[in-house]
Amino acid sequence: MDLERSPLAEPFPEMPPVAGVTLRVARARYKDWDRADLTYVELAEGTAIAGVFTRNVCCSTEVELGRESVKQGRGRAIVVNAGNSNAFTGYRGREAVEQVSQQVAAHLGCPASEVLVSSTGVIGVPLPKDRAKAGVEQALTASPCSWREAAETIGTTDTFTKGGHASAMLGAIRVEICGIIKGSGMIAPDMATMLGYVFTDAKVTPGFLQKMLDRANATSFSCITVDGDTSTSDTVLLAATGQADNPLIASWDDPGADALYAAIADVCQRLAHLVVRDGEGAQKFIEIAVTGAKSDDSARRVGLSIANSPLVKTAIAGEDANWGRVVMAVGKAGEPADRDRLSIGFGGIWTARDGQPLADYDETPVAEHLKGQDIRMDVDLGIGNGRATVWTCDLTHGYIAINADYRS
Amino acid sequence: MDLERSPLAEPFPEMPPVAGVTLRVARARYKDWDRADLTYVELAEGTAIAGVFTRNVCCSTEVELGRESVKQGRGRAIVVNAGNSNAFTGYRGREAVEQVSQQVAAHLGCPASEVLVSSTGVIGVPLPKDRAKAGVEQALTASPCSWREAAETIGTTDTFTKGGHASAMLGAIRVEICGIIKGSGMIAPDMATMLGYVFTDAKVTPGFLQKMLDRANATSFSCITVDGDTSTSDTVLLAATGQADNPLIASWDDPGADALYAAIADVCQRLAHLVVRDGEGAQKFIEIAVTGAKSDDSARRVGLSIANSPLVKTAIAGEDANWGRVVMAVGKAGEPADRDRLSIGFGGIWTARDGQPLADYDETPVAEHLKGQDIRMDVDLGIGNGRATVWTCDLTHGYIAINADYRS
Repeated sequence: MDLERSPLAEPFPEMPPVAGVTLRVARARYKDWDRADLTYVELAEGTAIAGVFTRNVCCSTEVELGRESVKQGRGRAIVVNAGNSNAFTGYRGREAVEQVSQQVAAHLGCPASEVLVSSTGVIGVPLPKDRAKAGVEQALTASPCSWREAAETIGTTDTFTKGGHASAMLGAIRVEICGIIKGSGMIAPDMATMLGYVFTDAKVTPGFLQKMLDRANATSFSCITVDGDTSTSDTVLLAATGQADNPLIASWDDPGADALYAAIADVCQRLAHLVVRDGEGAQKFIEIAVTGAKSDDSARRVGLSIANSPLVKTAIAGEDANWGRVVMAVGKAGEPADRDRLSIGFGGIWTARDGQPLADYDETPVAEHLKGQDIRMDVDLGIGNGRATVWTCDLTHGYIAINADYRS
Repeated sequence: MDLERSPLAEPFPEMPPVAGVTLRVARARYKDWDRADLTYVELAEGTAIAGVFTRNVCCSTEVELGRESVKQGRGRAIVVNAGNSNAFTGYRGREAVEQVSQQVAAHLGCPASEVLVSSTGVIGVPLPKDRAKAGVEQALTASPCSWREAAETIGTTDTFTKGGHASAMLGAIRVEICGIIKGSGMIAPDMATMLGYVFTDAKVTPGFLQKMLDRANATSFSCITVDGDTSTSDTVLLAATGQADNPLIASWDDPGADALYAAIADVCQRLAHLVVRDGEGAQKFIEIAVTGAKSDDSARRVGLSIANSPLVKTAIAGEDANWGRVVMAVGKAGEPADRDRLSIGFGGIWTARDGQPLADYDETPVAEHLKGQDIRMDVDLGIGNGRATVWTCDLTHGYIAINADYRS
């Protein structure tokens, strides 16, 4: 199926090299297609690595092994296979991942646990070992490529190529943060994944790198949803090559920690938004700001309950300021809320306050706002100080067409 | 919008009268339409009443007052308003409900708390007191009507009229159980409700009636989903008029309790299925049997995670035995599961066993089964003895058309 480019697509940004990161791609031909589908990222010796992974209980071998690698905190390479997720493939799938790690580790002279593998695409088909082997061999000797080529190569049914960049000044030292990402939750006709990779040349301890990723993840990837369906392979890795001359950062108190975190969080949020902008069938990008909740966590859960409601998502698709459906979604979240204190607004204009519709609000600017591509929804629970912002897209005929009309 | 009759519709059944239950309808004209929209059910003195209600925190006044009425256990009348759900309407909505209860209570000479009111339809508009008053007045003196007329009158955007009947022999005494229901979770262009009413002439204490309803609810209404969006007004009431000559039933140990429960559970499940069969845009009725879970409750949650997954629902719409999406939905449920013990089948044929796809299963009968209207899915978690069956429908372009293309 040929997917049309998302109307919410954004151009691939200018991204500088990150010292200590070398990108290469190869054609493993995991599917019968004429494109690069294996990405090989070589990382300088001493690179710290952190990761966050799907919480889906039925996760892939790649995710299981990745969790182990991240625990020891060092990474020398990342391999991404596109076209086959290798999930639900038992011991045969595991053997294929181990083969890839060992092949790269032998080349680099490092432990296999320092080679992280991700796979994305059809599930239930073991990754073909022969194709993986030939692909890796090709990749190890290929010429380095650009961020855009690497971002294209990790993609499967993405309708546009996604990258994000920021830099931070750590005292007098400038460091770069570059990230690439693929997917939109569950974008493929079968079952796809969100895979994201963020790289920096900053010098950071593995333990603190993981802390920064956990915190950035909580307000970026953990706050987006397309259809509420959690992939079995979702992975975001953050690698710090330490090639910049900044003094080693090991805690929030170290000079530069805040500046570096801000830049990492910025790139993570940027990448997360791009995934939503490529949501299956998406016509509108929706930002839902929840305030006045019992806690930040509670606010996030209320926000995701709204963002995952098919009735709210179809209302936005229909450009309908249907706050009644928002009331329903708040109420079903199971979080503390008080119907009679609830306020709901669209595009910065309250349409319901304190549990009652506002009979006299100005409908014209609200209707105008809903016709746009970027929708803002405000939900104030009025019972506390917790707040969170989540992002999603609308639910359209495009989603059904992609997932039901097409036969895998 | 004119909705086409669901392809899964069933004819309204033959339903006998239930002694002590008198049905009447009236035209309150809650909307600008030419149809009966107020249902008045008079119950014999001494009728025991039980109820289950939405857990949505932002529930309607009707639900709040209904919970109170059910606690005291006696009911003399039920009034159902169609066309206006009266939810999210603050004190003005509450006044309207109290007016209706008081008007009927004055006529019957009973406490207002013994008159239960439900409303369904658009939210955020207070129920108009003048129309409600005239409608109730008309209903109190109208001629009794049939089950079918009452079932039609509680409906809003339902595409067919729904009723269910069973009888039970309590020793030598035959008792009748008749139920009517409307909705399909959130069927309306705005926000509708599931309202169900079950009546029996059996003699049962209010406390035990509630126990039977709670138990029947757990394997019927609590096991269905159309889109996972919980209405603010969902209500099921069970009334026992006590006009039959059976010895009073007050506990599971009393003669006839099991037979009566079986018949009540049967009617509840029947009604629940009818709601799914009228699910928005439904083309297929899907039964998901989960076995081998840690507990029955865990099995139900896994089943609902599958039943609520947009990717599973669209796969069934596309007649695609996409067990990979089922794996994903099992994994995201957050319940105990072991990927390597998971088995998944369609139409009685396993397609994946013990965490791996079966390369050699016979695809022909599976494909044939998926072309039908009644789909059966088996999911064995292989880790315990918990089991549950849940029901849902597929997710089609019809759902989007109803909820996005139409502007409220």
